[in-house]
Amino acid sequence: MKVTDLTHSIYTGMPVFPGTEGPIFEKANTLAKDGFQEAKITMYSHTGTHIDAPAHMLLNGPYLDDFSIDKFIGKALILDFTGLKVPSIELDSIRPYEQKLKEVEFVILKTGWSNYWGEEKYYQDFPYLSEESAQWLAEFNLKGIGIDAISIDSMKTITFPVHKLFMSKHVLIIENLTNLESISKEYFTLSIMPMKNIEADGSPVRAFSIEDEEVK
Amino acid sequence: MKVTDLTHSIYTGMPVFPGTEGPIFEKANTLAKDGFQEAKITMYSHTGTHIDAPAHMLLNGPYLDDFSIDKFIGKALILDFTGLKVPSIELDSIRPYEQKLKEVEFVILKTGWSNYWGEEKYYQDFPYLSEESAQWLAEFNLKGIGIDAISIDSMKTITFPVHKLFMSKHVLIIENLTNLESISKEYFTLSIMPMKNIEADGSPVRAFSIEDEEVK
Repeated sequence: MKVTDLTHSIYTGMPVFPGTEGPIFEKANTLAKDGFQEAKITMYSHTGTHIDAPAHMLLNGPYLDDFSIDKFIGKALILDFTGLKVPSIELDSIRPYEQKLKEVEFVILKTGWSNYWGEEKYYQDFPYLSEESAQWLAEFNLKGIGIDAISIDSMKTITFPVHKLFMSKHVLIIENLTNLESISKEYFTLSIMPMKNIEADGSPVRAFSIEDEEVK
Repeated sequence: MKVTDLTHSIYTGMPVFPGTEGPIFEKANTLAKDGFQEAKITMYSHTGTHIDAPAHMLLNGPYLDDFSIDKFIGKALILDFTGLKVPSIELDSIRPYEQKLKEVEFVILKTGWSNYWGEEKYYQDFPYLSEESAQWLAEFNLKGIGIDAISIDSMKTITFPVHKLFMSKHVLIIENLTNLESISKEYFTLSIMPMKNIEADGSPVRAFSIEDEEVK
């Protein structure tokens, strides 16, 4: 069983979505004062590698805690769009995977953009799904769709059409994945377990893959 | 593959370790105002179902982020101490599992105490490991040890000897597990992935078990 960490570290000054705040770490208890140390952590629900619930953008959309735990783990397919000529992932480039997409519960879009984490470029011209691609993908029976960039929507849209499309189908969106180049197989088991907060519109996750003999 | 959630929900007013503070949820963004909703969450690093790093209590002990991701997943054995006559789990009651303990990476102590979550009783007379038991268990090659109570140490100790013993051997401690009665098999795969915070002395986790044919 090969376990691969697909998660960015969470730290003071880390990149966050423009307009939101980064995490704050306080030493609430210390070894010197209390005999144990404990941190008081303040963070937004969409910090770092995270998942979006439909409730993030849809009125009356389900929260993460409205789903059973099976929603957050399953068979995944990785599609490689590293070195894409245009930022938009168009339907022509995903249609060839139709048969494979029918066999999985998650699809992961590997773009290589995680290499720019911490740079200005991370927020600019990153690969995203076209609306047409999203329409087509949303017809499969997916639990979630993930990308190694800051958004699955173009930063130029202010209405987040791709987010809302997947949310309307209760497909979870996984953003800011990293280390996807360490996944060797096309198919693997993906876990994106959120914290078990109530009314969770999203959650940081410790995303990881498991590759083994059982997974084709 | 049967996935079972072993995690308490995180909510305002939830039980926390005496002397620490409960989580705070703020609506940082709302659909009405911003077109999306996002929460600003403040919580201690040992909230709810969580794991302890050695650095929680040991000077120069490793933080969670000092371990590779393999530390947080592996083969587990569950031992049933439900209905124990005395609160202390003594060596005589765990010694019979010696051979089985050699085959696993995690041991989970099921006491049934999670049924008292939210009651005063949860903090009182809960089952815990005797120091002698801990000494013996710490000699196995374990990644972690878990319990469905608020501490693996007696609340009467102020020095946390059992914690420190496991920490000195770099064995993770998992506390406030729940729903252990839903695990059907003696052996299963356990995941206790923490958030990927830097200098993490502990972390809330979404603990879950996987039972399948591959796991004996």
